[in-house]
Amino acid sequence: MNGAESLLRSLVSAGVELCVTNPGTSEMHFVAALDRVPGMRAVLGLQENVVTGAADGYGRMADKPASTLLHLGPGLANGLANLHNARRAHTPIVNVIGDHATGHRHLDAPLTSDVEAVAAPFSHWVRTSRSSRAVGRDAAEAVAVARTAPGQIASLILPADASWNEPGVPAKSRPIPDRPLPPDETIDAIARRLQKSERPALLMNGRGLREEALGLAAAIAEATGARILSDTFYSRLERGGDRATIARLPYFPEQAAAVLADVTDLVLVHTKAPVAFFAYPNRPSELASTSTKVSTLAELEEDAEGALRALAERLGIRRVEGGKHRASTVVPGKPSGELNPLTAAQAVAATLREHTIVVDEAATCGFAMLDVTAPAPAHDWLALTGGAIGMGIPVATGAALACPERRVLNLQADGSAMYSLQGLWTQASEGLDVTTVLLANRSYAILNAELERTGAAPSKEAQRLFDLGRPEIDFATLARGMGVPAVRVQDAESLARELAASYDEPGPRLIEAVL
Amino acid sequence: MNGAESLLRSLVSAGVELCVTNPGTSEMHFVAALDRVPGMRAVLGLQENVVTGAADGYGRMADKPASTLLHLGPGLANGLANLHNARRAHTPIVNVIGDHATGHRHLDAPLTSDVEAVAAPFSHWVRTSRSSRAVGRDAAEAVAVARTAPGQIASLILPADASWNEPGVPAKSRPIPDRPLPPDETIDAIARRLQKSERPALLMNGRGLREEALGLAAAIAEATGARILSDTFYSRLERGGDRATIARLPYFPEQAAAVLADVTDLVLVHTKAPVAFFAYPNRPSELASTSTKVSTLAELEEDAEGALRALAERLGIRRVEGGKHRASTVVPGKPSGELNPLTAAQAVAATLREHTIVVDEAATCGFAMLDVTAPAPAHDWLALTGGAIGMGIPVATGAALACPERRVLNLQADGSAMYSLQGLWTQASEGLDVTTVLLANRSYAILNAELERTGAAPSKEAQRLFDLGRPEIDFATLARGMGVPAVRVQDAESLARELAASYDEPGPRLIEAVL
Repeated sequence: MNGAESLLRSLVSAGVELCVTNPGTSEMHFVAALDRVPGMRAVLGLQENVVTGAADGYGRMADKPASTLLHLGPGLANGLANLHNARRAHTPIVNVIGDHATGHRHLDAPLTSDVEAVAAPFSHWVRTSRSSRAVGRDAAEAVAVARTAPGQIASLILPADASWNEPGVPAKSRPIPDRPLPPDETIDAIARRLQKSERPALLMNGRGLREEALGLAAAIAEATGARILSDTFYSRLERGGDRATIARLPYFPEQAAAVLADVTDLVLVHTKAPVAFFAYPNRPSELASTSTKVSTLAELEEDAEGALRALAERLGIRRVEGGKHRASTVVPGKPSGELNPLTAAQAVAATLREHTIVVDEAATCGFAMLDVTAPAPAHDWLALTGGAIGMGIPVATGAALACPERRVLNLQADGSAMYSLQGLWTQASEGLDVTTVLLANRSYAILNAELERTGAAPSKEAQRLFDLGRPEIDFATLARGMGVPAVRVQDAESLARELAASYDEPGPRLIEAVL
Repeated sequence: MNGAESLLRSLVSAGVELCVTNPGTSEMHFVAALDRVPGMRAVLGLQENVVTGAADGYGRMADKPASTLLHLGPGLANGLANLHNARRAHTPIVNVIGDHATGHRHLDAPLTSDVEAVAAPFSHWVRTSRSSRAVGRDAAEAVAVARTAPGQIASLILPADASWNEPGVPAKSRPIPDRPLPPDETIDAIARRLQKSERPALLMNGRGLREEALGLAAAIAEATGARILSDTFYSRLERGGDRATIARLPYFPEQAAAVLADVTDLVLVHTKAPVAFFAYPNRPSELASTSTKVSTLAELEEDAEGALRALAERLGIRRVEGGKHRASTVVPGKPSGELNPLTAAQAVAATLREHTIVVDEAATCGFAMLDVTAPAPAHDWLALTGGAIGMGIPVATGAALACPERRVLNLQADGSAMYSLQGLWTQASEGLDVTTVLLANRSYAILNAELERTGAAPSKEAQRLFDLGRPEIDFATLARGMGVPAVRVQDAESLARELAASYDEPGPRLIEAVL
């Protein structure tokens, strides 16, 4: 058995079942070993940001890592932006990055680069395998690192000779320690604060946004008068149906600061004190009021649900029903007339099916989406965690690979879509049940807002550079060119009708919604 | 004047006339300053690998840097692969990378990353501007670094506050030293070796592949019996018409080694001893025979043309006519029948117009292109220098921006095209005279060859992963979706006809040639 085969066997035995890839010459032995090792599904992405984004989407839904297989420094570089998003989402990912054979590196052939240096800024762990014998052990460690709470990016660099040489030695998977509970004193102290606080709030992210944790937070809120809030961006929020609702902190910092202004105690669960996404001249970047007392219930690597349960017990809450909470069940009727961000959101809400996975890269087109869809049947909501645009199509692809029995709905802004449009081909190639609503306003609209907010002068050049309408991009045509059936809709009824129709058909579908 | 304006004024005064960009919030003040500073053309790319690749194409043709404007670490990361190619092409580029305001960085907002670390592996020079006052000076230094022979990547990181704060202080451009001649002893020694060598050869790259240098090399070859060879990949080769011809070293190492096997003396001009692109089990990576004496006439930072002229004089060559050499002028007739790599090359050769800039990312579809087009009228040939696929469409875009009076012909393989297809939109948006011949063989064909060559087992999974035909990608439709007129051709006559027609029409055009 060569190093490549030992790598694959080690990954599979540690529970890694998916490899998203765009391989090259230095990865040939890994590719060939796929025939010999059962249990690994290999999926091709036509550019590496599709590959890493799909691994992110898979990890968010499967709560375990996919692997990637990337081609040297430039192949890795192409996927870094979605690794950045995955890192911010705390998604577990194992990157396998082929490199030149050990004896070839010093010759500085054209594709040579410092792969460790390329991986480092977006990885929690980087290692180059030193020999075929080390590959299996390194792979097992990479999976263990990736699965270490809260979820990490492990990048294993595989020189071609470590891949093709014998012997390879498969390694057993390593145990993953449970997330610890916070110390008793922390829970006691927060219980005391909440009991006497005038206007407390819980700010949650990470595993705090799963159904059970949300239900516990809602019970705590009811008992103490606390509000429950989420960060603006999160890996995955379980919502809808009878799940507890949670308000999202607004994107623009002055709005977020207003929401937080009168909070006396802010209790953090899997997050940190909130900060503005960008800085602006002469405005504060920290969003909590200086008079707010901030404390942390559960750090990122701790057990959020356990911490909330312990806190609820300390507060004397007897019957904690977990996720079961009454929320509004009035699903809005189907909208009619002109398509705009509000009617588009109503069309989504009126047609959303139970168990849908919503991938939200709607940007300015989607400002109404979250509120309007709150009463819809139970669904998951995946957001852009790192601000690197181009996550929507790839993450939707990966979520569909993780959950073949569920429909994925990708709410996708046009400017961001052009960053990783190639992912549509993978959806077609793998027959994935993804509906993409391409919200086309023909501009980088967020930048028009930001230009003014940064205090920069009004600018003709800016108007020109933010305009995606010269020429207009025809997304329905682009989707068809990659084998994804597509329609263009211009009114709200048509959007609702096409959404519902897409849910009844297997395979991917794109609906270009012209706003 | 704020820092951003001083930056723009410093770039323009140092001769930088083009800024290719995909800006974000942290770059708003730079964008706004474009209205106030004449002399800088700003061009939007829809993903950053288009941006950096266009800067590469521009720099190769203009022999001076374009600037990019990129959005924080992830925006830079998206463009790294084509920076890798540009670095290997020794193209001068000035990257301007926006970052969070200085006081915002430590808060670790979602888009935060270590921008210097992201830039370092693919840059010769990295600096973060410390204040608005420093920006102008830093910009002048960045241009000077980029223009330093043989051409470098300078990455200037611009915190948002250094951009928006006052005062900005524009800086004067710095003088660029001339490339020095090699020492006399070097030239003398090589002249002596060539005079007594049995089977000498010159291996050239960089400025050795411009018309004048090639003419000198041909005269030296005639006088000494030396062969003249180029590396497999180069930034820019001036060829065709009455220019001296040069043979290209083959891509596959055993073929290249065979070409070099009996060379007694190998004289290098702007290159180094040749090495295999990839390593293979049990095969040497160094291509020159161990009995070949290798010496360097002109290092990369030296004056290649001057060195060749001095060498010619040492060899007593009296009449050096520079570029004027008689080459075959038998342009092949138009081909007919089935489209394959040979007839496609014949169609290109039969229709190629004088002064065309050919951007070659044809991969396996293009193996016949270089030979068959050798007798065509004078043209330039730009190759994939760093092996990071996805350079063709962006480099063609940049070449057209540098040379608006010339037609660009992009010979583009399908797998590589999908890496940076977004560049077609920029061609449409700017009305650039680019003809793309999309050579569609529906596979990553090179990998089928490489799988066998690496000694990996034949593999069903490999066949599946290298197949771009499931589903088939319709490139003509994709081009139209981005506003580029397109046709699909299935035979050689149609390709020749459509090529000729495209040269008569302004603006971009894509011809999908189904092989």
